[in-house]
Amino acid sequence: MPQKPFLHTLLSPRLLDLYDVKDSIVVIIDVFRATSTIATALYNGAKKVVPVSGVEDCIAIGKKLEAITAGERDGKIIEGLQHGNSPAEYHRSFIEGKTLVLTTTNGTKLLHMALERDAEKVITGSFPNLSAVCHHLASSNKNVILGCSAWKDRFNLEDTLFAGAVISQVKKYFTIHCDSSLMAEDMYQLHCKNIYSFIKKTTHWHRLAGYGLEKDLEYCVTENVADILPVYKDGALIIH
Amino acid sequence: MPQKPFLHTLLSPRLLDLYDVKDSIVVIIDVFRATSTIATALYNGAKKVVPVSGVEDCIAIGKKLEAITAGERDGKIIEGLQHGNSPAEYHRSFIEGKTLVLTTTNGTKLLHMALERDAEKVITGSFPNLSAVCHHLASSNKNVILGCSAWKDRFNLEDTLFAGAVISQVKKYFTIHCDSSLMAEDMYQLHCKNIYSFIKKTTHWHRLAGYGLEKDLEYCVTENVADILPVYKDGALIIH
Repeated sequence: MPQKPFLHTLLSPRLLDLYDVKDSIVVIIDVFRATSTIATALYNGAKKVVPVSGVEDCIAIGKKLEAITAGERDGKIIEGLQHGNSPAEYHRSFIEGKTLVLTTTNGTKLLHMALERDAEKVITGSFPNLSAVCHHLASSNKNVILGCSAWKDRFNLEDTLFAGAVISQVKKYFTIHCDSSLMAEDMYQLHCKNIYSFIKKTTHWHRLAGYGLEKDLEYCVTENVADILPVYKDGALIIH
Repeated sequence: MPQKPFLHTLLSPRLLDLYDVKDSIVVIIDVFRATSTIATALYNGAKKVVPVSGVEDCIAIGKKLEAITAGERDGKIIEGLQHGNSPAEYHRSFIEGKTLVLTTTNGTKLLHMALERDAEKVITGSFPNLSAVCHHLASSNKNVILGCSAWKDRFNLEDTLFAGAVISQVKKYFTIHCDSSLMAEDMYQLHCKNIYSFIKKTTHWHRLAGYGLEKDLEYCVTENVADILPVYKDGALIIH
């Protein structure tokens, strides 16, 4: 019987070089809120989402593509950009048929790191598109890295919980020799029944809830409400 | 009321610069097996334990101090050294009154990193000296970093479980805004009742059990069987 492909969970961008990115599908996870927003914008009909690292790039590319520019730092819209990182902003009547250029603190950084290391494929995941991610991984027969974007390189719980949710669904298709993955699955199993109350204990909740973003954060941990698969191709995330 | 000091959990040496080491007590944790062996050797009467990074240093310092040299790579004693990393080797009739010079893959590396960053105090912890570590931290009124040595910079479960065991006992004395610490405590609470069977799932168990070290690993997760506090002072770990 051929060996099943490997699945690893990356807990911080700082550890990316410890993993074999080249032969893997890398799932970029930034639950609060980049990858929740990306899934939502595409689900609601956005033509594509262009993830960029810096604010200047965001403005320049936005102008060139006649696109909507968006980005926040510390829960506030960055000066010079038009919109924020909230998935609630990207309802169908606003985003359908448009291109979104998005810059965020953690998620876009890890995405570009994975691209620089020649990841075989880059997709993005969060609870709103959990099923789409799981179906793709289960049927791909490729090595997988579940890449938690973390918070300025520090471990965070919400990305880990999403990694655990994926592992719970797809583990029978993979060889998993990875303590990060065992932990992520345990944490998801422990808290999946009470996830809305559990996330209120996380450091990120305390950081963002001060800006009145509680509803946003609850949406970001709601499963399958924007269940499409964003795949990176030719400089943008599009629906697979 | 004055604010309680902060407690953080470090999941990989690679992330050390994200934390304020200078104003903290750093607890070096390398459950399999460096810090279990250090506690055991000191508990059994070793005069001191000198932790060194490299094999050549180990041999040179061992000669100079007329000390016992010890170190392993991949579960085997390194050529040129006299003993291994097993706590079982350091019973009282052998180690009492002697100096041990020890090199290991992960634990001694993190210890030296913490020293280079001017940690206020460096102590070592593992399950055999859990209580001594907790008593010290609870009474110190200082910021604390629980430093998991990990495995070649990758997250590991056994060090995380020990961090969780400490947090369970001392959390009321600290301000904890740290997702790593919340996770570590959850993982300890989830598995503390069945820790001997749980550690058989870890990647490190699979790595070392192949060398016949099962009894060793079980000892390393047994609480308070060598309950002293190793503190780094003048180049060596001694009993506090």
